[in-house]
Amino acid sequence: MSNTTNATTIEQWGIFELPLHGSAEGNPYLDVELTAEFSYKHRTIKVDGFYDGNGIYRLRFMPDTQGTWRYRTRSNQDVLNDVEGTFSCIAPAPGNHGPVRVANTYHFAYADGTPYKQTGTTCYAWAHQGNALEEQTLATLRDAPFNKLRMCVFPKHYSFNENEPEYYPFPCLSRGSSKWDFDQMRKGEMPAGWSFDFSRFDPAFFRHFERRVADLLALGIEADIILFHPYDRWGFSRMDAQTDERYLRYVVARLAAYRNVWWSMANEYDLMRSKTMADWDRFFRIVQESDPYQHLRSIHNCFEFYDHSQPWVTHLSIQRPSPAQARLWREQYKKPAVFDECCYEGNIEYPWGNISGEEMVHRFWEGAANGGYVGHGDTFLHPEDILWWAKGGVLHGQSAPRIAFLRRILEDGPISGLNPIDGVVSYRGGFPCAGQEHAYYLAYFGQHQPARIPVNVPEGEQYRGEIIDTWQMTITPLTELVVCGTVVKLPGKPYHALLLRRVNQ
Amino acid sequence: MSNTTNATTIEQWGIFELPLHGSAEGNPYLDVELTAEFSYKHRTIKVDGFYDGNGIYRLRFMPDTQGTWRYRTRSNQDVLNDVEGTFSCIAPAPGNHGPVRVANTYHFAYADGTPYKQTGTTCYAWAHQGNALEEQTLATLRDAPFNKLRMCVFPKHYSFNENEPEYYPFPCLSRGSSKWDFDQMRKGEMPAGWSFDFSRFDPAFFRHFERRVADLLALGIEADIILFHPYDRWGFSRMDAQTDERYLRYVVARLAAYRNVWWSMANEYDLMRSKTMADWDRFFRIVQESDPYQHLRSIHNCFEFYDHSQPWVTHLSIQRPSPAQARLWREQYKKPAVFDECCYEGNIEYPWGNISGEEMVHRFWEGAANGGYVGHGDTFLHPEDILWWAKGGVLHGQSAPRIAFLRRILEDGPISGLNPIDGVVSYRGGFPCAGQEHAYYLAYFGQHQPARIPVNVPEGEQYRGEIIDTWQMTITPLTELVVCGTVVKLPGKPYHALLLRRVNQ
Repeated sequence: MSNTTNATTIEQWGIFELPLHGSAEGNPYLDVELTAEFSYKHRTIKVDGFYDGNGIYRLRFMPDTQGTWRYRTRSNQDVLNDVEGTFSCIAPAPGNHGPVRVANTYHFAYADGTPYKQTGTTCYAWAHQGNALEEQTLATLRDAPFNKLRMCVFPKHYSFNENEPEYYPFPCLSRGSSKWDFDQMRKGEMPAGWSFDFSRFDPAFFRHFERRVADLLALGIEADIILFHPYDRWGFSRMDAQTDERYLRYVVARLAAYRNVWWSMANEYDLMRSKTMADWDRFFRIVQESDPYQHLRSIHNCFEFYDHSQPWVTHLSIQRPSPAQARLWREQYKKPAVFDECCYEGNIEYPWGNISGEEMVHRFWEGAANGGYVGHGDTFLHPEDILWWAKGGVLHGQSAPRIAFLRRILEDGPISGLNPIDGVVSYRGGFPCAGQEHAYYLAYFGQHQPARIPVNVPEGEQYRGEIIDTWQMTITPLTELVVCGTVVKLPGKPYHALLLRRVNQ
Repeated sequence: MSNTTNATTIEQWGIFELPLHGSAEGNPYLDVELTAEFSYKHRTIKVDGFYDGNGIYRLRFMPDTQGTWRYRTRSNQDVLNDVEGTFSCIAPAPGNHGPVRVANTYHFAYADGTPYKQTGTTCYAWAHQGNALEEQTLATLRDAPFNKLRMCVFPKHYSFNENEPEYYPFPCLSRGSSKWDFDQMRKGEMPAGWSFDFSRFDPAFFRHFERRVADLLALGIEADIILFHPYDRWGFSRMDAQTDERYLRYVVARLAAYRNVWWSMANEYDLMRSKTMADWDRFFRIVQESDPYQHLRSIHNCFEFYDHSQPWVTHLSIQRPSPAQARLWREQYKKPAVFDECCYEGNIEYPWGNISGEEMVHRFWEGAANGGYVGHGDTFLHPEDILWWAKGGVLHGQSAPRIAFLRRILEDGPISGLNPIDGVVSYRGGFPCAGQEHAYYLAYFGQHQPARIPVNVPEGEQYRGEIIDTWQMTITPLTELVVCGTVVKLPGKPYHALLLRRVNQ
């Protein structure tokens, strides 16, 4: 038995969605198998479908090649089996550059080759705050410099995060207490009363969540989707292995077709007492195996690193206060080093959430000049506990415009990214310099304030120089060209950078 | 044969000096042996004499006990042998607290028990700059906050240090070039032409040098005397083992009676290509054996640490940019940790010499709040290359008044020093706190800017709190007493500290 949908038109890296009507009886999440093969010429990609409630099953697919695609479904339900059709994949709309991939070992680019200079922020639980606040978050993001946002699938309980979410990912059987403290968390105790039907998902939760992913896509922001986290008083951090796997496959089936998706296995994975290192390996492999598009995959630590040399890790997602170490770790793992958490700008009592705006901006520059990438967060005390880092809302800090300034400089820099370079502007143990040999050098002085600096660009080459005040956001061109041996005069103030661009031959 | 001098009066920890007339024939430095035994009741201390030129031999002695001391010389020259006498050691004058010793494992105190809060600076070659500049340096020090100064015995050649000294420690046989560069230094090459008679000392050099040590003593400043260093184009860094030993014994014989002397075996010992680790062990042991007063002994690294656990090392003299590590290393070696070089405030091109005043002050506070001590330097470009760090002169930076402010706070703090304390104000991985349990807590927030901080002083105790702005140098008392669980409101700005002092019972 087969039915055939009409051919339709989908832009490259857009979402083709095939809704199918089937049975709502029994437990479709457990009982129904549904996949499809999408084919372009001789190439075939297998995709998992998912149940979306009310007897509706869906298949989503992100075509990566322009032309005619064919598909055919497979299911253990006759009504869902052998559905065939075609659609036409056309050129992407302006601004659609495809998903982000690793490029040049240490960097990122969109699938169409456009460089992607990771400039992240963090709103872990923003998608669980209700429409009013969520819309405000999106309005803030529209004018903010960030092209990536870290967000959790599961709701979050933590300091400043004690409100109940509107939706849960599983049907709630009984509600429990919202009171829970750090000591209980550390002991692995859960507040009494909560129970969920882990054999089913709540489609309303996921429809809402994926709408927020789409909202980010519309703003050109990558969604770094955090699949597990320890800030849990509902039990989502201690599900059994089968439920974990079903959950991962369901999320991938629903969300992988969004081109702005990245997979973060966890936030602070090492705080999750009920998972072992083998669990994390397994989660990575499940996602790796089930994601037809091989979106970026990482895992974020609290204290100890996961083994980032594992082949399923595409890039480092680091929590450490010193992005200067990007240089060390990108070299060690031969992967891009993203410092997703290097402390947040704010004024709360926790050291990770109270660095100054100057220090936040400093750490972004330190990361960039060491060949890495940095993430932002904003954690200012708020009368209603609306802290950007968790709930979104508005930004209270001073770093965002300076991060925008840096992002513009990076986007105006070498397509192939900044790699550490010694001996041109830097000194051992001193300030960092990164760029592309014979073309571009960006040295950042941080708390150092040299009033002059000798520059050893290669013999016979000429460079235009610019002195950058990273906080005041000024760029002052040097009046004379820089050659090997030039001693550049600098303002002798902290938080400046020197940029050298080769004069075209 | 014997002669007897008249009894005289010397203050405790002052210098008793016995000049003796002998022969100037031959080479008295090699040929004449002269020692003396100084006795107080049943206790006898053996002291080496030295030849001071023109047939004059001297013995110097620093008595540590009030009362009548006897002495008797021993020499291989009849005229110098069996000279006997007595003197009366009286109470020290005001301001004379004796030499500085290690106290409470991690800290320092003068011999009379007065705490000594190390607040150092660095003028490596100031004593080789001629009287005009040297007097200006002393005038600067008179109003500066520093109670220790690092200074080299040997003249110095380095960037910004190319002038010839007025004196050399050995008679100069032929003068050579003053041109010499880093590459030659790295290769261990010396400029041609220089030769010295290493079998003799030049008393004029040492008379001048020790006058400068005495000048520091008059200002209450400890002289951290650097015995060897690699910044050498005359050959003083590559003398033979016998000459090294004779030199060390001569310096100790001349200078050890100055109570403000500390012995630093070297600056950047690990850059001295012609010395082995066994040489450094030997130098330590020579000084340890020949110094009757056991002045403080240390050695300063460039890259690699000397083994500070050796028993002859009294304290750590560290070059590293992060004095926060004081906590780690004082614990590892169970000795005081002094960061003599954590980069200097300045604007020269070298990373070690161009941190901002804010950063210099920050590092002093980081050291203090981690139970350590920090040293200062000032390296601003100068039209005549007069940089404080090497030559003295005047200070150009902004850190000195803030360091004075910190020193007053430390001197107003616990006599027994600040030791790291967790769990009262600090958080793991965050900002440091040090003090004395049940009495005094000093937390320093650095680039962190909490607007509130919960304080867990011991139950049932009450504390007065003060908020310290380390840069503006203000101290704002809290209006209410702090008890366990108090959440202290803070300004939410970087570079602040919180001081808690227990209310007297």
